[in-house]
Amino acid sequence: MHRYDELWAGLGLDLDAHDRLLKALPPTYYEVYLKQENRPRGMEYFDFVINEIHGLRIKELQEFRQAGGKVVGTFCLYVPEELILAAGGVFVGLCAGIEVGTARAETVLPRNICPLIKSFMGFKLSRICPYFESCDLLVGETTCDGKKKAFEVLADFAPVYVVEVPQKKGPRDWELWLGEIRALAARLEELTGKKITPETLRAAIVKVNAKRRALKRLAALRKADPPPISGRDALLIYQIAFYDDVDRFTAQVNALCDELEERVRRGEGVVPPGTPRLVITGTPMAIPNWKVPYIAETSGAVIVAEELCTGLRYYEELTDESGETTDELLASIAARHLEFDCACFTPNLKRIQKIGLLANEYRAKGVISYILSFCDPYAVEHYQVEKGLRDRNLPVLKVETDYSEHDAGQLRTRIEAFIEMLTGGANTRTE
Amino acid sequence: MHRYDELWAGLGLDLDAHDRLLKALPPTYYEVYLKQENRPRGMEYFDFVINEIHGLRIKELQEFRQAGGKVVGTFCLYVPEELILAAGGVFVGLCAGIEVGTARAETVLPRNICPLIKSFMGFKLSRICPYFESCDLLVGETTCDGKKKAFEVLADFAPVYVVEVPQKKGPRDWELWLGEIRALAARLEELTGKKITPETLRAAIVKVNAKRRALKRLAALRKADPPPISGRDALLIYQIAFYDDVDRFTAQVNALCDELEERVRRGEGVVPPGTPRLVITGTPMAIPNWKVPYIAETSGAVIVAEELCTGLRYYEELTDESGETTDELLASIAARHLEFDCACFTPNLKRIQKIGLLANEYRAKGVISYILSFCDPYAVEHYQVEKGLRDRNLPVLKVETDYSEHDAGQLRTRIEAFIEMLTGGANTRTE
Repeated sequence: MHRYDELWAGLGLDLDAHDRLLKALPPTYYEVYLKQENRPRGMEYFDFVINEIHGLRIKELQEFRQAGGKVVGTFCLYVPEELILAAGGVFVGLCAGIEVGTARAETVLPRNICPLIKSFMGFKLSRICPYFESCDLLVGETTCDGKKKAFEVLADFAPVYVVEVPQKKGPRDWELWLGEIRALAARLEELTGKKITPETLRAAIVKVNAKRRALKRLAALRKADPPPISGRDALLIYQIAFYDDVDRFTAQVNALCDELEERVRRGEGVVPPGTPRLVITGTPMAIPNWKVPYIAETSGAVIVAEELCTGLRYYEELTDESGETTDELLASIAARHLEFDCACFTPNLKRIQKIGLLANEYRAKGVISYILSFCDPYAVEHYQVEKGLRDRNLPVLKVETDYSEHDAGQLRTRIEAFIEMLTGGANTRTE
Repeated sequence: MHRYDELWAGLGLDLDAHDRLLKALPPTYYEVYLKQENRPRGMEYFDFVINEIHGLRIKELQEFRQAGGKVVGTFCLYVPEELILAAGGVFVGLCAGIEVGTARAETVLPRNICPLIKSFMGFKLSRICPYFESCDLLVGETTCDGKKKAFEVLADFAPVYVVEVPQKKGPRDWELWLGEIRALAARLEELTGKKITPETLRAAIVKVNAKRRALKRLAALRKADPPPISGRDALLIYQIAFYDDVDRFTAQVNALCDELEERVRRGEGVVPPGTPRLVITGTPMAIPNWKVPYIAETSGAVIVAEELCTGLRYYEELTDESGETTDELLASIAARHLEFDCACFTPNLKRIQKIGLLANEYRAKGVISYILSFCDPYAVEHYQVEKGLRDRNLPVLKVETDYSEHDAGQLRTRIEAFIEMLTGGANTRTE
């Protein structure tokens, strides 16, 4: 990776701590990504993006800010990218997928809390996430207790605005959520000093829908046997979707899809035909949290779909582009969100149906139910996942883990046993 | 305790498991409660209630049900007692304050989850809570992720209805919550077959307000030095408020207050004058979770106020009795709830002010911030408690614990050190 010391110092990063972080990543990336055989050529762009994720992209954001632009950071699909773009801003995800700054994070957070939350607080308090330091506003949400309350702490260290995501999906929730989206639009206009018009909003929706369409195209190609791309690489692309410039990213995903279509036509894939196929579902995976997909794909399986926020939920639903007024378009944005099967809703049984349909459509033999430690929404909802998939005769492996590597050996043993069980044709619950 | 084998068998309890539970309680109760010196005579009634909590009260509920009445169980102040009474039903709290049925609970719940949730699931799946088995409907709420999602699991084993508590307190939240209260009223009418009228609703509000007034009277008497009643005894009364017949309970609390007024007049108390006074704040304490108050009060301090749902939050706010129509009275009920400083709201800074005012008014020297393990709302909000009380020069001891006795010795050492620090006049944070 190139060095951008001046840029990083200008953002107030702790350069020594940041250097240690940067040194930790390349060996992991080599092991998880670059060692893969028969990778699509089109992945080169995404490798480049990761290599420059604390460099060139941050430089772009700084240039944008120097020209008066505003950068808005978030963690969640409930903060609509279209709105930020329509107000003339840029949307970025925030650092959260690795154990970092834990000692500092634990001065303000309880020890037993979701690693994603501890990670983002560690990044912020240790000043090693250039995205955090490039943001003019952080937009949080109320999708889980841990984040909801941690944003209150974060507000002592950065400007934070919180949108309230409802917990059911009835008419009252619709009113609440539409109101929250309208209020967020006003807040973003205030931030950027630019009015959201029907034109800017429709253009933003069309732009982001194009990204979603490209990702849907990518997903559909993974139905082939053998799949033309690994699950790890697909996950990486979904993760990068939160950071990269929208149009450039869309073009690169489409270019990759052109290549993958060729591969599918030739029957070429990243694994031998007949390799056991898995769906993964549960808690979202932030960069560089690739642990479980990596283990699964180096244990004889291939992941063909992700029922995750860093997966299907990100691109499945499009926003209706047909509204005439700003308010109609805001309603279309709000309506899209209430289609998501996030575990923050009660009940959330459509999610279980979705996993079943997905497994069927992608010809998966089994499902990994992935739960980040202390993530109550997905951990408790696992009961429904297991029950619902048992009714569909679909084996499920529950994997509860954090960002450390301590359990990697044990996870590998369990995942290998699960895959073996699948290929042996047995059909029982493994836990 | 008398035996009610026929009654318990009729409810489908697991009699052996229930017997083991019943045998475990009396020694604890003796140690925590009956051994106290100079207890008010009026506590005899509450001792009797506890002694008969699985007996006489259950018998009353069964008689009520046999006469066509409906019993509604809940865990939370957000389920308004007045509404249940107005619909002709009876409101009861559910068993949740002890480690029980853990192995069964862990077949449907994650291991790392709040002990209160694991406890209620353990009680239900093991069939040892006669309250659960006496309920015609359980009304859950969305105040935390763990409960919100656990009610979905519980719905496989009992009839459950969930009200959605909002997460902020703006005008949109008001609309949502008022709608939820109206919908709950309709659901309760359906359950009992009785219409809620302005008359029944106002009568229920007056009845429950009388209970709250009696509890406020009790609380005010604890401002005296020495306090005429221990914190443990006050907590017990707040806990019983969730289970007992409203009018009988109110009369008994008022009778106790008559006695306590006499004590205060005579300067008589349960501890010597000048005993260090504490406020306790945080996660609610269900029967028989008396661990931390017991340790504090046998380590040289006395608890004078509880900023808890089993405490101040239960009785502090009255419901406005002046509405003319059912809808006006429903709005008064809904409005009362949005005054509560539950950690489910973001932000929730009024709670911190409240703790400070309470400590001042009750002349407390320090605060115990009590957090049940894995309770994210209170655990993360502890940051605000500590920060806010540090600004007010009020020492805080954070106690994170569960229902086991494993840490009792360590807690005693920490609490003793905290009390010693308070009496030594030092003023630093202890953690």
